[in-house]
Amino acid sequence: MNPLSSPLMTDNYQFMMLQSYLEQGMEETAVFELFVRKLPPGRNFMIAAGLEQALNFLENLRFSPEELAWLAPRFPSTLIAYLEEFRFTGDVHAMPEGTIFFPDEPILRITAALPQAQLIESRMMNLLHFETLIASKAARSVLAAPDKLLVDFGMRRAHGAEAGLLAARASYLAGFSGTATVLAGALYGIALFGTTAHSYIQAHEDETTAFEHFARCHPDNVILLIDTYDTEAAADKVVALAPKLGADGIGIKGVRLDSGDLAMHARQVRKILDEGGLENTFIFASGNLDEYRLHALLASGAPIDGFGIGTALDVSSDAPSLDCAYKLQEYAGKARRKRSEGKVTWPGRKQVYRKYDSADGCMMRDVVTLEEDNSYDGEPLVIPVMVAGERINGNVGLDEMRRRTLANYARLPSQMTALEAAHAYPVEISPSLRALAKQLDEDSGAFSHLTQTL
Amino acid sequence: MNPLSSPLMTDNYQFMMLQSYLEQGMEETAVFELFVRKLPPGRNFMIAAGLEQALNFLENLRFSPEELAWLAPRFPSTLIAYLEEFRFTGDVHAMPEGTIFFPDEPILRITAALPQAQLIESRMMNLLHFETLIASKAARSVLAAPDKLLVDFGMRRAHGAEAGLLAARASYLAGFSGTATVLAGALYGIALFGTTAHSYIQAHEDETTAFEHFARCHPDNVILLIDTYDTEAAADKVVALAPKLGADGIGIKGVRLDSGDLAMHARQVRKILDEGGLENTFIFASGNLDEYRLHALLASGAPIDGFGIGTALDVSSDAPSLDCAYKLQEYAGKARRKRSEGKVTWPGRKQVYRKYDSADGCMMRDVVTLEEDNSYDGEPLVIPVMVAGERINGNVGLDEMRRRTLANYARLPSQMTALEAAHAYPVEISPSLRALAKQLDEDSGAFSHLTQTL
Repeated sequence: MNPLSSPLMTDNYQFMMLQSYLEQGMEETAVFELFVRKLPPGRNFMIAAGLEQALNFLENLRFSPEELAWLAPRFPSTLIAYLEEFRFTGDVHAMPEGTIFFPDEPILRITAALPQAQLIESRMMNLLHFETLIASKAARSVLAAPDKLLVDFGMRRAHGAEAGLLAARASYLAGFSGTATVLAGALYGIALFGTTAHSYIQAHEDETTAFEHFARCHPDNVILLIDTYDTEAAADKVVALAPKLGADGIGIKGVRLDSGDLAMHARQVRKILDEGGLENTFIFASGNLDEYRLHALLASGAPIDGFGIGTALDVSSDAPSLDCAYKLQEYAGKARRKRSEGKVTWPGRKQVYRKYDSADGCMMRDVVTLEEDNSYDGEPLVIPVMVAGERINGNVGLDEMRRRTLANYARLPSQMTALEAAHAYPVEISPSLRALAKQLDEDSGAFSHLTQTL
Repeated sequence: MNPLSSPLMTDNYQFMMLQSYLEQGMEETAVFELFVRKLPPGRNFMIAAGLEQALNFLENLRFSPEELAWLAPRFPSTLIAYLEEFRFTGDVHAMPEGTIFFPDEPILRITAALPQAQLIESRMMNLLHFETLIASKAARSVLAAPDKLLVDFGMRRAHGAEAGLLAARASYLAGFSGTATVLAGALYGIALFGTTAHSYIQAHEDETTAFEHFARCHPDNVILLIDTYDTEAAADKVVALAPKLGADGIGIKGVRLDSGDLAMHARQVRKILDEGGLENTFIFASGNLDEYRLHALLASGAPIDGFGIGTALDVSSDAPSLDCAYKLQEYAGKARRKRSEGKVTWPGRKQVYRKYDSADGCMMRDVVTLEEDNSYDGEPLVIPVMVAGERINGNVGLDEMRRRTLANYARLPSQMTALEAAHAYPVEISPSLRALAKQLDEDSGAFSHLTQTL
């Protein structure tokens, strides 16, 4: 039972509900939508990500004999028989990965027999929530340091193996240059970066020997970690070592700083390197970095050429979760609306249209409306990606998705590219959608309770 | 290549360092220790967790033909040949899972040939960091609501599948009663809990029908979700339905609230249930809960019998990472010390001794000293768990670990069981350890730079 693909990677209540749905014959078509209720504090937008993994999960969803054997003593044989034959045969509409989106806009719509659409809830959220979280976080570093090399260093403090792997993918999708996580290179073709750990330096009797060993071992990729003992003293050692390596045709590509006042050290190290004739040796910085520190370092003019961003990226430190939901919007041809306090949803099958400024091409406003409402033009953001359990559109490669994401940034109004929250981007709820919500509330006698949301 | 077991789930620099170690013949014994540099803000202690998964990883660590084929064009044949035969054959010392620990105390020590000890760094941290993070977070809810049913509801917003699975394990270890995550039940035998989603209620034409269907389908486990539309109106429906179900021998075990002012709703619902003769029907609450909300709800006297805690638990919302490190403390028989600014480590192989108050049995103070220093009594917290790549001590079951954790809470000084930071627990660095650090600094001429830490 592999957690990454097992259908038991779900909430217990899904099986309890399925049992009841089957007993009642409730297998008509359900429409669920996945959306985020609100932006994390200080954010201007989110980036949709994780669809590739979500569709893989749906395509391959089946119960193994071992899983069925575990379920068998716990549920009636009718449910087990149903699960034996279980395949996802529904339709999926979604925003392509890399799409900029806002609260209340569906990034995924599932149209399937109710038990199917219900069972997949937990893992669909688990996958789309996490990659969207990380892509949205990574986008901020990309916008804060647009011309710098940015590398994901966070796997060790990511929340488990899948988080480390998918954080590498989501940050690359959002515009990072690569990752330190080897498996992300092997599985997704993401460029890999790496230098040494402090232990490498410590294990040698002296720092210069460590530098020389590393350089001779990796002559095309000499990036030396210089903060293990005394950063500037190490920079002097790098300069002193350079001619000896140069005589053998080995250049020193870069140095890495990982602690202390990075701006100050970068300035001093830059000076030492330049005066030592190593003007082309770049400075790479890491150590508790996030988009705010990148912005501050670059604003201060620190001569840093690239950044390794670790924990703050892989756990989305300032906002480690999104307030996302997967809600039933229609069942058996009838729109549905959850009205729990503070969690009211917009009912029905929805589409989002985005309008751009004809002058500068920037995003101007979105409208969320019913899919059947043809009164809007603009770019429809929710597109069909799976029909009757089969993917359509073919596979788009990760590099192509990354290019699209970068092109999307270029259409952000400039104030929205800042790290601070700008004036909220206008997302309009259409009159037809408001009318449907009002009608559902009136039908159920709940109108007075909800007038404030209409 | 399964991310959960693949040795490619590591940082690229590990392979680069290994290549250099092998070329230089640096295969002598290295000692690495894993520790946390500081407590998250507002915390009084941490709980060690994840050792079981870490040891599993070490026992099964080998490179598949597919993984070797991916590495082969990227690294020299000497490294590939070494990896073909790779097994972890080192020793491991660790704090047992469920141990209360503090900054600078090693929770894991690896003693192995340098390349082995180096390669495993990334995944060892990835596993131990995450489960320790979640167990430490979960402990706070257990201490805030000691007599309540606590259930992990967080998988959908955990960071990927492994995070969801291991959060269920770590929170159970820390004293939770169970989880909603089915696979955690299947793999770890953790008790499973579940009711219904709002979609279940919405998919029915009316709420009473939904309640009755669920009750008849799960007659031994009738817990009804009552906040989809109007909580008190739903409680009235539950009371009205009870006699009809009772006539068929079906009791209503509980109701669940998931939104709004939980204390207010719990009081009103309790009153409705009690007046309707359902005094034994319990009230279970969920919805954006964490230890602070549990404390506030219980302090207000809200009649809530159990809690589902989701996102805040599974992402450790207030502290989504720990400042942990895996550092070389000895190589080739010689102690080593990293002296990077703000990241200075205590060198050598270390042990932690804990002293308890003879009167009340409570923890009094810890001493961190060198393993070879026999001048302390008290309980040694770091014990051997693996010798030459083989586990010793047999497997301790998760339930037994959970019992030990609860017993450890009982020995916390009472002010440390509060949610707010108490006066720091005394952790002494022994004179012998200080002397070793000083000697290493003097040997390297770094003494003046570091006097403040001694």
